Amino acid sequence: MTTQAPAAPTHLFHWVLTLSCIDGPGIVHAVSGAIVAARGNITESQQFTSLDTGRFFMRLQVESPAGRSELEEALAPVTDRWNMSWHLDEVGRPLRTLVLASTAGHCVNDMLFRQRAGQLPVEIPLVLSNHGTLRDLVDFYGVPFESAAVTSPEAKAAFEARVLEAVDEHDIELVVLARYMQILSPELCAALEGRCINIHHSFLPGFKGANPYRQAHARGVKLIGATAHFVTSDLDEGPIIEQNVVRVDHSRSPAELVAIGQDEESRTLSQAVKWFAERRVLVDGARTIIFR
Amino acid sequence: MTTQAPAAPTHLFHWVLTLSCIDGPGIVHAVSGAIVAARGNITESQQFTSLDTGRFFMRLQVESPAGRSELEEALAPVTDRWNMSWHLDEVGRPLRTLVLASTAGHCVNDMLFRQRAGQLPVEIPLVLSNHGTLRDLVDFYGVPFESAAVTSPEAKAAFEARVLEAVDEHDIELVVLARYMQILSPELCAALEGRCINIHHSFLPGFKGANPYRQAHARGVKLIGATAHFVTSDLDEGPIIEQNVVRVDHSRSPAELVAIGQDEESRTLSQAVKWFAERRVLVDGARTIIFR
Amino acid sequence: MTTQAPAAPTHLFHWVLTLSCIDGPGIVHAVSGAIVAARGNITESQQFTSLDTGRFFMRLQVESPAGRSELEEALAPVTDRWNMSWHLDEVGRPLRTLVLASTAGHCVNDMLFRQRAGQLPVEIPLVLSNHGTLRDLVDFYGVPFESAAVTSPEAKAAFEARVLEAVDEHDIELVVLARYMQILSPELCAALEGRCINIHHSFLPGFKGANPYRQAHARGVKLIGATAHFVTSDLDEGPIIEQNVVRVDHSRSPAELVAIGQDEESRTLSQAVKWFAERRVLVDGARTIIFR
Amino acid sequence: MTTQAPAAPTHLFHWVLTLSCIDGPGIVHAVSGAIVAARGNITESQQFTSLDTGRFFMRLQVESPAGRSELEEALAPVTDRWNMSWHLDEVGRPLRTLVLASTAGHCVNDMLFRQRAGQLPVEIPLVLSNHGTLRDLVDFYGVPFESAAVTSPEAKAAFEARVLEAVDEHDIELVVLARYMQILSPELCAALEGRCINIHHSFLPGFKGANPYRQAHARGVKLIGATAHFVTSDLDEGPIIEQNVVRVDHSRSPAELVAIGQDEESRTLSQAVKWFAERRVLVDGARTIIFR
Repeated sequence: MTTQAPAAPTHLFHWVLTLSCIDGPGIVHAVSGAIVAARGNITESQQFTSLDTGRFFMRLQVESPAGRSELEEALAPVTDRWNMSWHLDEVGRPLRTLVLASTAGHCVNDMLFRQRAGQLPVEIPLVLSNHGTLRDLVDFYGVPFESAAVTSPEAKAAFEARVLEAVDEHDIELVVLARYMQILSPELCAALEGRCINIHHSFLPGFKGANPYRQAHARGVKLIGATAHFVTSDLDEGPIIEQNVVRVDHSRSPAELVAIGQDEESRTLSQAVKWFAERRVLVDGARTIIFR
Repeated sequence: MTTQAPAAPTHLFHWVLTLSCIDGPGIVHAVSGAIVAARGNITESQQFTSLDTGRFFMRLQVESPAGRSELEEALAPVTDRWNMSWHLDEVGRPLRTLVLASTAGHCVNDMLFRQRAGQLPVEIPLVLSNHGTLRDLVDFYGVPFESAAVTSPEAKAAFEARVLEAVDEHDIELVVLARYMQILSPELCAALEGRCINIHHSFLPGFKGANPYRQAHARGVKLIGATAHFVTSDLDEGPIIEQNVVRVDHSRSPAELVAIGQDEESRTLSQAVKWFAERRVLVDGARTIIFR
Repeated sequence: MTTQAPAAPTHLFHWVLTLSCIDGPGIVHAVSGAIVAARGNITESQQFTSLDTGRFFMRLQVESPAGRSELEEALAPVTDRWNMSWHLDEVGRPLRTLVLASTAGHCVNDMLFRQRAGQLPVEIPLVLSNHGTLRDLVDFYGVPFESAAVTSPEAKAAFEARVLEAVDEHDIELVVLARYMQILSPELCAALEGRCINIHHSFLPGFKGANPYRQAHARGVKLIGATAHFVTSDLDEGPIIEQNVVRVDHSRSPAELVAIGQDEESRTLSQAVKWFAERRVLVDGARTIIFR
Repeated sequence: MTTQAPAAPTHLFHWVLTLSCIDGPGIVHAVSGAIVAARGNITESQQFTSLDTGRFFMRLQVESPAGRSELEEALAPVTDRWNMSWHLDEVGRPLRTLVLASTAGHCVNDMLFRQRAGQLPVEIPLVLSNHGTLRDLVDFYGVPFESAAVTSPEAKAAFEARVLEAVDEHDIELVVLARYMQILSPELCAALEGRCINIHHSFLPGFKGANPYRQAHARGVKLIGATAHFVTSDLDEGPIIEQNVVRVDHSRSPAELVAIGQDEESRTLSQAVKWFAERRVLVDGARTIIFR
């Protein structure tokens, strides 16, 4: 809803509010009442009640002259009463994102190009890689790049320590594995839970693990795909955010499947990152809710 | 949201409420307040504000022990204040639907099969056709069938009069042109405005008019499609409800395109009818809003 | 290629020839030479050499005044020299097809409707089911229907014996499991090898086994699908013929996934049967070659 | 087909041969005979006879120790006898490609990234633009870039003269309009006939001309798309090479449709260029044949 024409131009904040709690009657009315109290107009609203977990999820976009503290004050009785998990942010604020990569550049290129074109609301203070291959590409986009080989357990531990240090240093909100070809340690998975997205180059749950295109060729599937999912310590089992497929036929070699699949990987990962940055991805147990 | 466990089992109605009005602040809160007042819980909610027309649109599903009159009474102050267009119905009530057909049976077969399988919430008291071809098929599903040739202006007028009579007689809420191959008169279009859906066998706005598959072949398109849209007196220009496409290549003859396209026609039409019957289709000027 | 205008109209046969052999030089020239010798014109031709198995595969459509014996005589030196597996048939001859079903009617309805509409080149002398549910539907299409409960090992053995008897009796070329919900015995799988097609209600290799839609819901996938494949004694592991997917979101219950998936099951199975009947499906080890 | 193991390793050329002629009997046998005579093995073969134009089209890939002159000598009697249009090239040779652009970078970025990644068999000696916007991007890929404003008829004539000069200078085989936002003069269209590909940002024939996304929004279509086609003097009417679509809904503004559509534009154009460079695109009157 739009505001009534004000006497004098007032700055309008554009807020995005996400929340979840145990479901019960009256939640929508209470939340919308708090927003009215904070002089807000709801411009976008989505809700979902999970029959699996009994939880209620909501995402709102709100225009209001109210700043953060006024809005939080109005919401406090509601979020307290229903014991809500909630997050309040400004629409369009770029999410601080750390990218991990290896040698394949298609996902990194896609993210950086979209970011610069204004289509991906992230800022990327750093790309970390276990290879130097992508330095020139990342340099071109003016993003700092560091690489360190991961060829021993010690080197892996050092690399992961650098990841956590960078997360702290840059106040990172999202870590993206853009075809980073190392398995994260359980400790790192735990530390990044709910804020680390991986792109797997198959249509999960088919073809988990290594060489999915080779597996797909051997099995003779007629569609290949890509899956963006949250990273958990259970390899390739984290909550799925987005998936895409593309048709192939018998004539494609494993190497051709790799090339064909890269388009799906890039766009699937960039889509997942965009939704996450826009606060459209909520986690409901082993599943995600996507408020598109 | 679900209800709190009641002391004794109470019958819960499941309502679907759609509404639209000029946009303004406070609408969501007012509507949700009326629903709380009528002891209702919102189980599904979608909203949209059209920048083209300045109108606000909303669709709600509500569980409540309140019957129609109690709910209407609670809503009256809100619908009055905002001068709303609104509709209240029970979720799942079958829509009274009249089907017009000619000789091609794929769309009729698809609708009747889904209806009987419980996947299409309509009841079909009558199929009218300008050919007798589909009598056996319609008989099999136990639906009355009438046919009359439309080979002269007089016969066409008589057929259209029978359509309007049947609409009255059966209190018809939706007329479906399931590959009915006659152009409706402007008068009939006007009489059925907003409650008559046609399936056009092309991806509109490409290939309007007759023989779209022949046109598609001549133009050498690589995808063919189907479009379900509201019927208006402006041929093939009514608001679009749903579209689908399928890939083809140079080797397909016009006749093969016809066969390939039939799948898209059937599923596109059945999908549009399902959404309409579920009150998920709202009209915003020349466009539709689909609350899936 | 078309023929030169003949002095007098001659009946032209339309042949489809499929063949495979160990790859080597000169095969295409030899085959096309035999066809020229039999006064044939190649109207459609596809070939593929499998790097996995080293085999060469070819499918040809040929117009010729030559009958079967003349064509076979011309081909004999070629098929002998390369030790070919080959099959010669008339284009469009309906394949004798036995359908097994249980209670779900969507695949059976789709096949029967397409068959009658002239879009599926099969003839179906019999539908066998372990339930009586679909009798009316099958009756409507004028196809004989038999049902027998499969509730004990003895009943299952009797049912399978009836299948084999029917295969003999009707000279069956293809057995279709149209959502037949019993696992075939290894003996029956072996007896029907290469001529039995199943529709699995998931995107294989994901969600093998029972209740794939429930599994898909639990895993939170964003696309669900269907897979038509040859039946082997290794459950859900036979060569894949065709797959399709459709997008779903978090709001769908397992029951809704079932309903949504049925469209993909029907069209995937009918497509696979059509290609098989047109001799477009060749088996290359664990994979299929589809000459569309 | 592969060769028999040779006594000593021989260099094998990998040829791609495309040809077309008036259809008639014996062509396949004659062509395959010439290839056998030139010690070649056919590794890929596709053919099509157009019922619209009566022409026969063929594309072959051939491995052979024979060089160009030996192969041409063997083919000469065949190409003469049937008065064939034909082209012989080496598989994988990069096509000399001139790119024209304006301010939008997504198509140029996609082509340059794929080219460098080895997925697009072209070499790009020059990008010409009527704006300077993309200079940095093109520089990064090490490709020469020239820009000149096109703000008057004289400037347009000068720009087009530079295009033709560059075509000569670099022996250009393909000109790609990568969202070049000027209409080519009829003279330039004629000069580049059959070797100039444009990406149109709609699903043609819908929404020809300017601002297709605005048109698509106004019409309320449920899918938007992109079309790669040969440029002719008849605007947006040249033979279509490839098309893709993506689903959208009522909530998308024209500006969002632009962003969503860019993915389809990039991949559709790159796909068309790839097929053209691989000699998989043949023109049959107003239509294309794509030998994928």
